[in-house]
Amino acid sequence: MSAMPSKVSIREVGPRDGLQNEDPVPTGAKVRLLDALSRTGVGRIEAVSFVHPKAIPQMADADEVWKAARKDPAVRYSALVPNSRGAQRALDAGFSEIEVVVSASDTHNRRNLNRSTVESLDDIAALIDLLHTAGARAEVIVATSFGCPYEGDVEPDRVAAIVDRVVADGADRVAFGDTTGMATPPRVVAVVSRVRENHPDLPLLLHFHNTRGTALANVYAALQLGVTEFDASVGGLGGCPYAPGASGNVATEEVVHMLHDMGIETGVDLDTLIDVARLAQEIVGRDLPSGVLRAGPRLPSGR
Amino acid sequence: MSAMPSKVSIREVGPRDGLQNEDPVPTGAKVRLLDALSRTGVGRIEAVSFVHPKAIPQMADADEVWKAARKDPAVRYSALVPNSRGAQRALDAGFSEIEVVVSASDTHNRRNLNRSTVESLDDIAALIDLLHTAGARAEVIVATSFGCPYEGDVEPDRVAAIVDRVVADGADRVAFGDTTGMATPPRVVAVVSRVRENHPDLPLLLHFHNTRGTALANVYAALQLGVTEFDASVGGLGGCPYAPGASGNVATEEVVHMLHDMGIETGVDLDTLIDVARLAQEIVGRDLPSGVLRAGPRLPSGR
Repeated sequence: MSAMPSKVSIREVGPRDGLQNEDPVPTGAKVRLLDALSRTGVGRIEAVSFVHPKAIPQMADADEVWKAARKDPAVRYSALVPNSRGAQRALDAGFSEIEVVVSASDTHNRRNLNRSTVESLDDIAALIDLLHTAGARAEVIVATSFGCPYEGDVEPDRVAAIVDRVVADGADRVAFGDTTGMATPPRVVAVVSRVRENHPDLPLLLHFHNTRGTALANVYAALQLGVTEFDASVGGLGGCPYAPGASGNVATEEVVHMLHDMGIETGVDLDTLIDVARLAQEIVGRDLPSGVLRAGPRLPSGR
Repeated sequence: MSAMPSKVSIREVGPRDGLQNEDPVPTGAKVRLLDALSRTGVGRIEAVSFVHPKAIPQMADADEVWKAARKDPAVRYSALVPNSRGAQRALDAGFSEIEVVVSASDTHNRRNLNRSTVESLDDIAALIDLLHTAGARAEVIVATSFGCPYEGDVEPDRVAAIVDRVVADGADRVAFGDTTGMATPPRVVAVVSRVRENHPDLPLLLHFHNTRGTALANVYAALQLGVTEFDASVGGLGGCPYAPGASGNVATEEVVHMLHDMGIETGVDLDTLIDVARLAQEIVGRDLPSGVLRAGPRLPSGR
C-alpha cells in the first residue's frame, strides 16, 4: 500500500458524460453549467464530445457550446471523440486533450461502437497518431474495466492487455471506467495492481459509477494504492442510479466532501460546487442523486 | 491493519430503526416484514423498540408485533429500550438482547433524551444491572460517535470515555452510531483504534448512515481493521437520504452485495433479501434509496 495522497485531481465530467445521459438541454444551459464549473476550482473538466448528432443528439451543439464557454486558463478542458472525424472536430475547436473509449469486453464494445475491441484498438492507434501529429494528447478510456453487463466479470488480464497495446501505440494517459457500477474495492485493487505490473509510472484515472453504492468505497481503496485522479459528475448528473439502466456517475460533491474530510486537497470549493449541483438540478429539472447536495456537508462550511 | 475478515455478522435494523423513522404502518405489515427478514439468512434482527407510544407512535404496537412474529431459532433478535420501564417490557416480552442509546455529544443527548450524557450514563448503569439480574445481555449504542449535527466533530476521546464507563458498568457489547451520516473512513479508523486501546477484545458493532454517500467506504475501512459486525436496514428503510433531516440507514442489500463480492460470508441470501427490500418498499409506499434494490446485483445471481 502506498501512502495516502495529499492531493487529488478531479476531472468534472458533468457537462459531457453527465448531460449526454440526460434528456437534451438548451445550448445556453450547457454553457452556464460549464462556466459555473470553471469557477469551482476544479482542475479539469470534460467539456463536450464530438459525436454524430444522430447517435447522441445531446451533444449536437458541441461546437457552439465550446465556442460560447468562458475558457479558464487554470482549467484543463478535454473532449471525448468516437473516431478520427470527431478528433478532427475537437482539434479544430482547439482542444489539446482528447479522450477515446474502448471496452475491455468485446460484447460491450460491439454494442457501444459496433465493432470488436481489436478493431477499436486498431482505430485508436491511428487516432493517437492523428492527435500527436496535431500536438494534442490522447487519453484512452477502458470501459467495463471492472465488469460488463453482458459478459459479467472482466479479468484484470484483459484490461492490462488493452493498456499494453494502447501504451505501445502511444497513448499518453489511460482511464478505467466502471461503466455500469460493477466495481468493488478488491476489483479496483486487482485492476490497478495488474496494470501497474507493466506500467508502474503510467498516469491512471478512475471513473466510478455509484449504481450499487460502492463508488466512494472504490475511491477509498484506490487512494490507498496512491491513485490521484478521479472522474466525477456534479450532482451525480448522468442518470439517476435508481432508474433502470441508468449510468449513475458518482457525484463530484460526494467525492470532494469525503476527500476534504480526509485532509486531501482537491482545489475545489465545496460550497461553490454544491451551488453548481443545484444549478445542474434546475437544468435537468429533476432531483439529482447526490447526498451532499441534499443534506449539505457534514459541517456547515465544507471548504 | 488486521487481515480482512472472512465472515461478517449483519444486524438487520429495518423493522425497528427503519420503521421508526417512516410514517406508521399497520401491525400486520410489520410482522410480515419481520418474518420475511427471518427467512433471509441474516443472523440478527433488531425487531422492535419499547418506547412510550406518544414519543414514537410507530412502535406503539411493539408487543403485538413481537407476539405475532415467527421467532426463528437461528436468528438473534434484539429490542431497543429508552429506560428501565422499556427494559422491563422487553424482558417481559421475552427478549434477552437489549440495546440502550447514549449520545457522545451532550447537545444531541439532551435533544434526544432530555438529559445530559452523564445523566444517561447513570441511568444506563442501573439498567445494565436490571438486565443482568434478569439474565439478559446489554448493548450500549453510542450515538453521534463520528460527529454531531449540533456540536460538529466529536473527539474519539469522548467516545472512548463513554465506552470506558459503560464497560466498567458491565455493558456486554458496544455499538457506534453514525447518527446523521457524518462518518468518513479516517474517522472510523480513529474511533475504532481509540476504543481498542483500552478494550482490545470488546465486541464492537458499527452503524452507518449513507446520508453523504460514505457508508460503504466506512464499512470497507472498518473491515480493514477487522471489524465484523455491522447494522444495516433492508432497502435503506428509515428515511430517504435525499430528504431533509432524513436518517438514511445504509441498505442491507448494498452492504451484503459488496461483502459477497469481496468473498466475505454473511449467511444472507442476497436474492431473497432483495425480495424483502421490495416488500419493504410496498409497505412504506415509496421508492427506497437502495441501489442494489433498483439495479440488481452486479451479476444476475448475487448469492
